Amino acid sequence: MPARLKSQNVARENGEQNRAVAICQKAARIFHERGYEATSVSDIAEAIGITKAGLYYYIESKEELLFRIISHGLDWLDTEVIEPARALTDAEERLRWIIRHHGQGLCKGSRVIPLLTEEVSSLSNKHRQQIIGRKRRYLEFVRATLDELKTQGKLRQIDTTVAAFGLFGMLLWLPRWYQTGGRLSAVQTIEHLLNLYLNGTMRPQNQKINRSA
Amino acid sequence: MPARLKSQNVARENGEQNRAVAICQKAARIFHERGYEATSVSDIAEAIGITKAGLYYYIESKEELLFRIISHGLDWLDTEVIEPARALTDAEERLRWIIRHHGQGLCKGSRVIPLLTEEVSSLSNKHRQQIIGRKRRYLEFVRATLDELKTQGKLRQIDTTVAAFGLFGMLLWLPRWYQTGGRLSAVQTIEHLLNLYLNGTMRPQNQKINRSA
Repeated sequence: MPARLKSQNVARENGEQNRAVAICQKAARIFHERGYEATSVSDIAEAIGITKAGLYYYIESKEELLFRIISHGLDWLDTEVIEPARALTDAEERLRWIIRHHGQGLCKGSRVIPLLTEEVSSLSNKHRQQIIGRKRRYLEFVRATLDELKTQGKLRQIDTTVAAFGLFGMLLWLPRWYQTGGRLSAVQTIEHLLNLYLNGTMRPQNQKINRSA
Repeated sequence: MPARLKSQNVARENGEQNRAVAICQKAARIFHERGYEATSVSDIAEAIGITKAGLYYYIESKEELLFRIISHGLDWLDTEVIEPARALTDAEERLRWIIRHHGQGLCKGSRVIPLLTEEVSSLSNKHRQQIIGRKRRYLEFVRATLDELKTQGKLRQIDTTVAAFGLFGMLLWLPRWYQTGGRLSAVQTIEHLLNLYLNGTMRPQNQKINRSA
């Protein structure tokens, strides 16, 4: 293929990808405002300003669109939080990274996508299992980090499953209450939550017990 | 009114009240399973096993039913958590009471009512404002308790608004993950969360600073 045609193809593919992301974001807002069940494909097409047939060029069905929105949120989590965290060998540093980056992302990003991520019950069985599996792997990653800290004698007497879900609750509640442009910045808010969580789960420095010995 | 008739009336009223509560619980389950928007009054009547007309004897509309379910959850919170907590003069004891009783209630009770309590967007403006107001008053109550601990020099350097929402996130996430009959009882689970939260927000005993002096 001539270079010019190839670059035109790439440009078109990028354009279509951007369009698909824009459709996800717009649809997420409408689903959130009106409720997923109450929203029709026509409603979404109208809000985006394209025909229903034009929308079906990008999506297979309303359910597939919801699946894509939720997957989009989890892709962000993988790329921006989980993958860089996996590269950190120190468990405490890893925990700090997870809280800071997931927390700040939840404050700064779209609040409708994280909220829709909870709507797994509207998905087909196949899609639901896939999303539940991805969430479960994130839980296991966080819990394994806490277990590592426990083995190092750095953790208080706390059940690591309860502690992992406690963290998810604290973080995933943010889109419900955090106000952009309010008294505290995203960074300040997350530092408060980080300190609360680390003081709540980890032994004070001078009480460190080496359990791996 | 003769005593016999009066007692019959009371019995009938109690019976109707029990029936109304049972309708709320059944409807909450259906709303949760199918989504509020996708559920019709006929669906609810069918699931309960009464006629649509029979159901309208107890409810005004689907929206009024959702409002009643959410109010029922907040009434429980008032009676079992907030009112007894208000009677406690010691702020730390009050905080422990709130966490224990709200947390254990969320583990032991119906998980669908707390989850539906988040569905305020489907309510009429008047009902929505009423629910938001009740939730706001609970937030202010918890935050005032944390502020009191701060004045007493018992709190770490933490923003009390962030700390209050952090607690709500930890507690209100419970219906999403806590499994009855699992490895940990409700009491054990909540003791772990209580310790996490108190260690995370309060100064260690020997570091107490008297700020009220």
